[in-house]
Amino acid sequence: MIVVKVGGSAGIDLDRVCADIAALWQGGERLVLVHGGSHLTNQVAEALGHPPRFVTSVSGFTSRRTDRRTLEIFEMVYCGQVNKGIVERLQARGVNALGLSGLDGRLLEGPRKDALRIVENGRRLVLRDDYTGKVEKVNTALLNLLLDHGYLPVVSPPALSYAGEAINVDGDRAAAAIATALGARALVILSNVPGLLRSFPDESSLIRHIPKDRVEEAMAFAEGRMRMKVLGAAEAVAAGVGRVIFADGRVEGPVRRALAGEGTVVC
Amino acid sequence: MIVVKVGGSAGIDLDRVCADIAALWQGGERLVLVHGGSHLTNQVAEALGHPPRFVTSVSGFTSRRTDRRTLEIFEMVYCGQVNKGIVERLQARGVNALGLSGLDGRLLEGPRKDALRIVENGRRLVLRDDYTGKVEKVNTALLNLLLDHGYLPVVSPPALSYAGEAINVDGDRAAAAIATALGARALVILSNVPGLLRSFPDESSLIRHIPKDRVEEAMAFAEGRMRMKVLGAAEAVAAGVGRVIFADGRVEGPVRRALAGEGTVVC
Repeated sequence: MIVVKVGGSAGIDLDRVCADIAALWQGGERLVLVHGGSHLTNQVAEALGHPPRFVTSVSGFTSRRTDRRTLEIFEMVYCGQVNKGIVERLQARGVNALGLSGLDGRLLEGPRKDALRIVENGRRLVLRDDYTGKVEKVNTALLNLLLDHGYLPVVSPPALSYAGEAINVDGDRAAAAIATALGARALVILSNVPGLLRSFPDESSLIRHIPKDRVEEAMAFAEGRMRMKVLGAAEAVAAGVGRVIFADGRVEGPVRRALAGEGTVVC
Repeated sequence: MIVVKVGGSAGIDLDRVCADIAALWQGGERLVLVHGGSHLTNQVAEALGHPPRFVTSVSGFTSRRTDRRTLEIFEMVYCGQVNKGIVERLQARGVNALGLSGLDGRLLEGPRKDALRIVENGRRLVLRDDYTGKVEKVNTALLNLLLDHGYLPVVSPPALSYAGEAINVDGDRAAAAIATALGARALVILSNVPGLLRSFPDESSLIRHIPKDRVEEAMAFAEGRMRMKVLGAAEAVAAGVGRVIFADGRVEGPVRRALAGEGTVVC
């Protein structure tokens, strides 16, 4: 069982990712694909006159400001254009893919943050109309039901709050929660860099290996969204996932190259 | 087993539809919900600078001109905003809804029209870059698998062509194909009028009953998109669906009112 997360940054080659996923699936690998859509969401939000905003929490994490209109645009892009684009690519390659958001069948559930504490221009603010939260529960029965019947699940945020609201959750941490819940032997996280870089954006400074007891140190090198990825990796490995591999989603055969050890391996 | 189709026209009250569906579901009714999204698709297509176009086939049916960019916008609205909006409404009411497009798990399959023969300004034209088709096969095993495990399927176009491409298909005829494949006792088609009107748009001219051997005559009263609805009803009743009811999606308790005989009943 492996879980693959493909990010939504510019440069990631979904055709190559899907071709590789199809080859693994047809070779008998049990697999769940999780995806993002952040870059396209930014473009569509701009085009629809509701430009993206990002906020920084008091603990230093950056996240998308998700008011109700942003949530709609987020769903249009993640659950509509990107999810169905991936499902179509896999179906065209003979894989019986089936797309789900975290809302569907209560696949991904968790609490909505009732107050988001942020820092803006050095001042602390509290946002109460934000639809953001985190994944605490994964409906593994649904994923196993689909896998057992030959369907490859293609999973996207948002998740569902315990009150039944859609909530924006970080895709990498959602993938980590899924990998943990399914007891995956590997979680592959593809983005538009070769892995975790000691001196971002210098790709020759790739960190090849992080032992699981030194993940906290690696956080020192992580910038921006990569911090969330490293945090997700730490959680997943601590909870029993065999390996987490940060790898390049722009290359030919990206998943098999990651499984062969290319990228940053946390284990 | 009943199939409910809720249209995507302006005026339809999705909160009332979802509250009614939740009551039926929680009362033990086996149910599949199919939805549209045409009005919102038009708005989003305008906002994104790719305004909607409609074409009329040589046989007199009007359909959306679906080039590749339109298909993407269509998926954003149908599979993203509308489908997840309905799933969220049902989840908030305690129903374990699960949204699917026709692509997912090859739920709805059929041929893509390799050439769309249309009439424009009195001239005949052939379009070869249109992603339009029709539903010939329904994956009833998938629907029954989900229903048997407590999930309410919420289904949206597009469908999947036999070559693995997304294709725009008429939602009413897709609903009719699903009702037929599942042997539903009723297919309820909700729109923003009380049913089939003898003198459109005069709502007092509602036709209350159409015997199945006189559906062809009723086509004479059908205008625009209603022609597609009547055609779908004829197909479904001929193929064994108990009743097709065209009813008002703007009112309180719209599905139960339709099942009680309000609207136009074809049987």
